[in-house]
Amino acid sequence: MDAKVVMNEALTSLQQRNNAQLELWLKHFSNVDSRLIQAMNYGLLLGGKRVRPFLVYATGQMLGCELIQLDTPASAIECIHAYSLIHDDLPAMDDDELRRGQPTCHVKFDEATAILTGDALQTLAFSILAEGPLAPEGESQRVKMIQMLAQASGAQGMCLGQALDLAAENRSVSVDELEHIHRNKTGALIRCAVRLGALAAGEKGLAVLPQLDTYAQAVGLAFQVQDDILDVVSDTQTLGKPQGSDEQLHKSTYPALLGLEGAIEKAQALLEESLRALEAIPYDTEYLEAFARYVIERKN
Amino acid sequence: MDAKVVMNEALTSLQQRNNAQLELWLKHFSNVDSRLIQAMNYGLLLGGKRVRPFLVYATGQMLGCELIQLDTPASAIECIHAYSLIHDDLPAMDDDELRRGQPTCHVKFDEATAILTGDALQTLAFSILAEGPLAPEGESQRVKMIQMLAQASGAQGMCLGQALDLAAENRSVSVDELEHIHRNKTGALIRCAVRLGALAAGEKGLAVLPQLDTYAQAVGLAFQVQDDILDVVSDTQTLGKPQGSDEQLHKSTYPALLGLEGAIEKAQALLEESLRALEAIPYDTEYLEAFARYVIERKN
Repeated sequence: MDAKVVMNEALTSLQQRNNAQLELWLKHFSNVDSRLIQAMNYGLLLGGKRVRPFLVYATGQMLGCELIQLDTPASAIECIHAYSLIHDDLPAMDDDELRRGQPTCHVKFDEATAILTGDALQTLAFSILAEGPLAPEGESQRVKMIQMLAQASGAQGMCLGQALDLAAENRSVSVDELEHIHRNKTGALIRCAVRLGALAAGEKGLAVLPQLDTYAQAVGLAFQVQDDILDVVSDTQTLGKPQGSDEQLHKSTYPALLGLEGAIEKAQALLEESLRALEAIPYDTEYLEAFARYVIERKN
Repeated sequence: MDAKVVMNEALTSLQQRNNAQLELWLKHFSNVDSRLIQAMNYGLLLGGKRVRPFLVYATGQMLGCELIQLDTPASAIECIHAYSLIHDDLPAMDDDELRRGQPTCHVKFDEATAILTGDALQTLAFSILAEGPLAPEGESQRVKMIQMLAQASGAQGMCLGQALDLAAENRSVSVDELEHIHRNKTGALIRCAVRLGALAAGEKGLAVLPQLDTYAQAVGLAFQVQDDILDVVSDTQTLGKPQGSDEQLHKSTYPALLGLEGAIEKAQALLEESLRALEAIPYDTEYLEAFARYVIERKN
């Protein structure tokens, strides 16, 4: 079968699996009648490609884990991602009204609820990672997984990236600075997804962590470059959010700094870098490779 | 020495200890030149009685731990508390401009930074609890501590309480409903502080958890009742925030529902309940007892 078809089928199937898992976690709160819980359901389950869970599953499976042994880190990292989107969309931040083609959380509910929903989803991520089932090999790495998730999402990772991104609005930044922003803003969590998948497999995963890090760093940056490209060349309906919103916010982007052709070349170079990193891994890297290709071929 | 003097000295000394610990944790970010880190320092270190760390220390010491074996949970829980204050003060939430006599985080910095600062401080709490040193007895309970902290602060604890509190503005609630709000909004974290202190001592702490829970539930509610009373009888300078702000936000309070005398009686009854719970604990409960008395005698 065509690699692209395989990838799309895997992505869809793991997306469904992750959604079902997240629904199960949210059912823990079904006895709580509150606007907060409704908003958590809305923010967590309304669409999303589930790229980070995919990376957890693909990495862990490559190292011999069953899917059921990867549900815990896959669910936890998606909660972090969902919370970050809800907070990024707030009026004081990027002020976005549309996300995945639907009203953003603060538009659908209200700003206070959206702030609390993000807060509670971050907490849920750590609950899941501290409570959810793991393989025996993964169990010995549970505390390390929690450390990694916290490190990737906090003031030396995602939150820092978002702060740097806001500080960079309305002024010109260099390519190096832009890369620093994105290595934190989106890169840290993507790298963390791969790491969590590896740690779920225990020692086996720890042994290939350096190569996986190189892969994930390149793929994470390629993801952002492609996002920037799509913001220029795609349309609002395909994106599920307003096309051209980066330009409107006077955000520095790869196409703005390198030109559209230059950005496409950069994405291609990062793809090649990620594939080289996979060559050094003595397991079946088919899905990680397919993912790297998907990153720069996707349309939304 | 007078019990009140002992308590005040202990509170001050542990407050200083906790501040020094939090400063150490924030130094991990000293190589990151960012508004976010400045705001984290501001939000975490500018005053605060350190009531939750005190409870961690008092409970753990009672069970035989050294202070150094309690720094980790004490620091983690204060990060959660600090993040919740920063987010609660936001314009979309309680819209407070003054906290501990100083401009709130979003006034001093800006709203986006305040949102991210709260987010990053929540993450830091879990980093600390996953990474910080513990006694050998506590080490075996590390994952359980993380579970407890997440449970107390998320959608079945503090975040829920804040959501219920916001939903209760501008309408009358019953005493039962008010209690439900506060058991979550402030009570869950206070109970968690006592629990973390207990878990840091391992099995010994687990054995007295039920009695400690009863104590902490009563003390936590008494704390809120006294806060409500102080909002009526104190002045802005003593409180460090505007006196009468509950009434201005049309919040239901114990004095509003029970009258000032009724609220004072309620606080007294909760104090007695908490002291009865301590009688069932076969250790030196001096500091936990002094804390319970302090809760309803304090002026801010």
